Amino acid sequence: MAWNTDLRWRLPATCLLLQVALIVLFGVFARYDPHSDAHWPQNKRSGNISSDLENEFYYRYPSFQDVNAMIFVGFGFLMTFLHRYGYSAVGFNFLLAAFGIQWALLVQGWLHSFENGHILLGVENLINADFCVGSVCVAFGAVLGKVSPLQLLLMTLFQVTLFSVNEFILLKLLWVKDAGGSMTIHVFGAYYGLMVTTFLKRSNLSQSKARQTAVYQSDLFAMIGTLFLWIFWPSFNSAVSNHGDAQHRAAINTYCSLAACVVTTVALSSTLHKKGKLDMVHIQNATLAGGVAVGTAAEMMLMPYGALLAGFICGLVSTLGFVYLTPFLESRLRIHDTCGIHNLHGLPGIIGAIVGAVTAASASVETYGEEGLIRAFDFEGAKQNWTASTQGQYQAAGLFVSLAMALVGGSLTGLVLKLPFWGQAADENCFDDAIYWELPENPALTPEDPTRKPPQEP
Amino acid sequence: MAWNTDLRWRLPATCLLLQVALIVLFGVFARYDPHSDAHWPQNKRSGNISSDLENEFYYRYPSFQDVNAMIFVGFGFLMTFLHRYGYSAVGFNFLLAAFGIQWALLVQGWLHSFENGHILLGVENLINADFCVGSVCVAFGAVLGKVSPLQLLLMTLFQVTLFSVNEFILLKLLWVKDAGGSMTIHVFGAYYGLMVTTFLKRSNLSQSKARQTAVYQSDLFAMIGTLFLWIFWPSFNSAVSNHGDAQHRAAINTYCSLAACVVTTVALSSTLHKKGKLDMVHIQNATLAGGVAVGTAAEMMLMPYGALLAGFICGLVSTLGFVYLTPFLESRLRIHDTCGIHNLHGLPGIIGAIVGAVTAASASVETYGEEGLIRAFDFEGAKQNWTASTQGQYQAAGLFVSLAMALVGGSLTGLVLKLPFWGQAADENCFDDAIYWELPENPALTPEDPTRKPPQEP
Amino acid sequence: MAWNTDLRWRLPATCLLLQVALIVLFGVFARYDPHSDAHWPQNKRSGNISSDLENEFYYRYPSFQDVNAMIFVGFGFLMTFLHRYGYSAVGFNFLLAAFGIQWALLVQGWLHSFENGHILLGVENLINADFCVGSVCVAFGAVLGKVSPLQLLLMTLFQVTLFSVNEFILLKLLWVKDAGGSMTIHVFGAYYGLMVTTFLKRSNLSQSKARQTAVYQSDLFAMIGTLFLWIFWPSFNSAVSNHGDAQHRAAINTYCSLAACVVTTVALSSTLHKKGKLDMVHIQNATLAGGVAVGTAAEMMLMPYGALLAGFICGLVSTLGFVYLTPFLESRLRIHDTCGIHNLHGLPGIIGAIVGAVTAASASVETYGEEGLIRAFDFEGAKQNWTASTQGQYQAAGLFVSLAMALVGGSLTGLVLKLPFWGQAADENCFDDAIYWELPENPALTPEDPTRKPPQEP
Repeated sequence: MAWNTDLRWRLPATCLLLQVALIVLFGVFARYDPHSDAHWPQNKRSGNISSDLENEFYYRYPSFQDVNAMIFVGFGFLMTFLHRYGYSAVGFNFLLAAFGIQWALLVQGWLHSFENGHILLGVENLINADFCVGSVCVAFGAVLGKVSPLQLLLMTLFQVTLFSVNEFILLKLLWVKDAGGSMTIHVFGAYYGLMVTTFLKRSNLSQSKARQTAVYQSDLFAMIGTLFLWIFWPSFNSAVSNHGDAQHRAAINTYCSLAACVVTTVALSSTLHKKGKLDMVHIQNATLAGGVAVGTAAEMMLMPYGALLAGFICGLVSTLGFVYLTPFLESRLRIHDTCGIHNLHGLPGIIGAIVGAVTAASASVETYGEEGLIRAFDFEGAKQNWTASTQGQYQAAGLFVSLAMALVGGSLTGLVLKLPFWGQAADENCFDDAIYWELPENPALTPEDPTRKPPQEP
Repeated sequence: MAWNTDLRWRLPATCLLLQVALIVLFGVFARYDPHSDAHWPQNKRSGNISSDLENEFYYRYPSFQDVNAMIFVGFGFLMTFLHRYGYSAVGFNFLLAAFGIQWALLVQGWLHSFENGHILLGVENLINADFCVGSVCVAFGAVLGKVSPLQLLLMTLFQVTLFSVNEFILLKLLWVKDAGGSMTIHVFGAYYGLMVTTFLKRSNLSQSKARQTAVYQSDLFAMIGTLFLWIFWPSFNSAVSNHGDAQHRAAINTYCSLAACVVTTVALSSTLHKKGKLDMVHIQNATLAGGVAVGTAAEMMLMPYGALLAGFICGLVSTLGFVYLTPFLESRLRIHDTCGIHNLHGLPGIIGAIVGAVTAASASVETYGEEGLIRAFDFEGAKQNWTASTQGQYQAAGLFVSLAMALVGGSLTGLVLKLPFWGQAADENCFDDAIYWELPENPALTPEDPTRKPPQEP
Repeated sequence: MAWNTDLRWRLPATCLLLQVALIVLFGVFARYDPHSDAHWPQNKRSGNISSDLENEFYYRYPSFQDVNAMIFVGFGFLMTFLHRYGYSAVGFNFLLAAFGIQWALLVQGWLHSFENGHILLGVENLINADFCVGSVCVAFGAVLGKVSPLQLLLMTLFQVTLFSVNEFILLKLLWVKDAGGSMTIHVFGAYYGLMVTTFLKRSNLSQSKARQTAVYQSDLFAMIGTLFLWIFWPSFNSAVSNHGDAQHRAAINTYCSLAACVVTTVALSSTLHKKGKLDMVHIQNATLAGGVAVGTAAEMMLMPYGALLAGFICGLVSTLGFVYLTPFLESRLRIHDTCGIHNLHGLPGIIGAIVGAVTAASASVETYGEEGLIRAFDFEGAKQNWTASTQGQYQAAGLFVSLAMALVGGSLTGLVLKLPFWGQAADENCFDDAIYWELPENPALTPEDPTRKPPQEP
């Protein structure tokens, strides 16, 4: 089936409409919080804050910048591995993330930092908006190459909304801890994306098979993405944790888990190749599963060996998934997952949620200290009578809620995106920048498209 | 006309001369400031500073590192889009910035942090030196591919000097606020560079037209630059703002403005293409105009919607500029602006200055609080009787001074650089690394030069 | 001689064995330190710490992230300059660093932060682990392309151990100051690597000469590495310095030294080319020597001009080394140093150690203040009676110890790695990703291997 892929009026109109709506909504709702408002000198006095350094900015800004790098550089370049889809990978990721963070500031603001009719913005809102968009970037990985930028904008619109609702249910109704988002970001993003791609099933995708591969240079560009995600993941998992020990511990645990995961990934990648060679797909992706593995438990007293163990297991599971599960899903269930997000975010996210639930359930006064335990899990006020075991059960519940929300939400989104007027490419034109981008004119300097006939020689 | 492009003695002699002069001048003038000197324990006591954390280093160092990444990685890679000029883009940017920061530390030091015959250096000086060099990187964009490294060193020498004088006039004489440098960095840098390129007019540049294009890989390299500029721009605009709320607010506003700008740029890029396709040039450049748009106002109470609006407008203006203005300037006025800096820094810089002037003029006690207003605009001491409206008028004056300084300074520099002995390439050899770089020997592995004849087959 | 390069069982078994051992050892030994443990509220009280901000995390975390970027992105991409060895450069660096940081946490922990039978981990341990692995990355540069991943794991195992012992001798027994590791990291890493490569001498390496070159794109990838190392080096040299002025000063000095080094490198590179052209090898490498040059002295009162001078000299020496010394070592002494680490880390490291010794020896109460001098060199407790001159002598001793440890340790490691069963490639297959990596199938899209015959046409 051939759809019209000329987005000349549809894409601009949608962008401008959304952006104008955002400006109006920001005008009505968005204000600065006490730490970013010019009334800070008064706020400082009334809050008994002695130094400008106690401004939340200094606790969180370096982490924010690392997270920001992960979303735009990390995810953007990670997806450039397809040799004819680099512009789209990095460019569409840029577009959806830039739109998504604005919408996330609003939706998360209404749900989490709404006071007297206004959303109060501070650095933590920026981090949370990046987090939310991170989950869209995850889902993008499943549909990469098969959707138009218009579909991506719509998916972002829906997913950011549902993400924020799910996050609200988990954090505010179930009082779950999930600082690095194993459940809210990775499980939700992965299964949401997998449902979308399932509903967008394309029967003749094999026609563009030749473009579904990497070339030497595109694999190196993808490694830029991998490494920036990898090095800054400790900031990701610690960015919104409690001040002091929790941020500190989350960074240490994530660092340990990531390191173990790389070693396991290399081991499995070599084992599963008949000549013991390494596969770039695994090195680019499965090495990151260690960050997802401790997305819930990193700020808890997981202990360094616990972090290593979580990374170890996720490296195994993720690499096995790339080798066995992805082909199975594609051939049997017709679920085409371009980047293998199920292996990098789905399964490790579930494991991370379980690790978090178990770690929470086994928390004790001995390990945390009395004050420490209360502080780590907010066992005061409404949660005053909670025990570690209660917390563990609610954590587990959070996993199921996230899964359910993702499956239902992703299905509905998939249904909408299936409509024929969003400018999607025909099956034989997938994974090709040329559909949506003006490409350099000199054909000799552009990577050859192996599916196209060579120019006839005279 | 064929000039001698062999720089063997001229370039080394200039580099060594400049570097030795810098060492001598640093020896005479440069010392550590109270926060970086080993006398810090005493300075702490005499300044009633209770903790090492109050050392300026901890307020500003993370921002400094982000700014440093922008200057060297961001600008360096942004300019690698030309397919035969990647070495020069990233390499000459490296050279001019490394020389420029040293010279800027001195000139800015003499004007801004000179005490008892010495320049006192701290982390803020490093940021300001990077800022100053940022304006040279902007100007470099206009002449990219058409000048020798020797000319770039001279341009840096002149521009850093004039930048610092202009900055002194604005900040110290006109008491203008311009934390992110819409006027001092972007307007000044852009119009300075445009004047230089105007004076260096080349009549036969069309002979190297074939090399003035991107290829697939070079566009991806350029996106590295774009994204690192984009993600760290909140640090750029907040790096030297007041402690606490001002830094915090500047980061939030910049983040908002940048996000809106991306969405608008995509909308316009698609609208202006006859088949609705996106143009990499716009995505690489116009998406950044949002950072320039709030370069003056980011630290003020611009409000989040104000930031979105500024980014929205600059995305429009910048993309329109690339499509209509750049070709017009080139064909009618003979101003060849290689990277289109007029669209990314010139026009958005002017808009940013106006946004700043308006935001300042409309500042009120209600919005800032009494203390907040005084603190935001230094309405004390000599400025005790200033009103918001006075501030706004001075802001506007600052824009005109910057423009004037840039036009005059750039013209003079252009006149000097026009002299025939700086090793510049002939018109037909522009945009070619081979003039100044030893290239890899294996021709098969180097991007083909479409302007050269293919090797004859037997 | 043809070895078996199929690593299918050897590499996975080694990885898994090492990783399981690490998990067990972490389980027995590794715990959180008082700033990262959940008992932090109590620890804060008992330590009279008033604010969460005084948690060590906030002093050091931004620097840690920069250092982490240097190790994985910086070193990884710097070594991608070989046109057929990009996967291995970035991938093996990833593997060895991920394994190395875990092992370093343990060995350095036993030697430096062992209390009551446990290693206490905090952010400073993470930085030191990255530092230690940095020295392995340096040594990797000497053997790049000639060793198997299995050999690299073994080298890392040995080198991390010896590094930590050497570091212990220098810092704890000789009370040497070496915050940026001129001696412990650069001299040790460089001469260790040179000894390993000497022992692994290959007589027919010229057979893979054609693959020992860069291509246009691979040089640009390498510049990513160069620039990330360069911009973050100020964080590297200041990351573990004393709070306050020492961190601040170390960053300033490193920034200055690096800048001067770039200008000198360009000067020399042009001088030494017969047509005055620049050589990418110098720009990629010698520009970084300025960071090594002040690795010991950066935190001292080196004075800004002293930093410039150190960078100036190391730029000269390093570039000269690339032009004259590397060919000499290779042709006369049969020492094949793939990346020229002797010029970037060896010689500048020695110079840096000397600069440090001289700066320490000339420290005075006048320059440091009484308190400042004691604080800078820990002249209290056991060192109570030390003078600046004593410190200078011990610094010099540290250099010789590091050299001796590196030469002996590297030789022993070289002997072990020479054994024929580690999966190393034959001489004619060196510098080729195809030995250890599954490469993209489409040959048209992979950089051609000039040493292989083209496919026969029918």
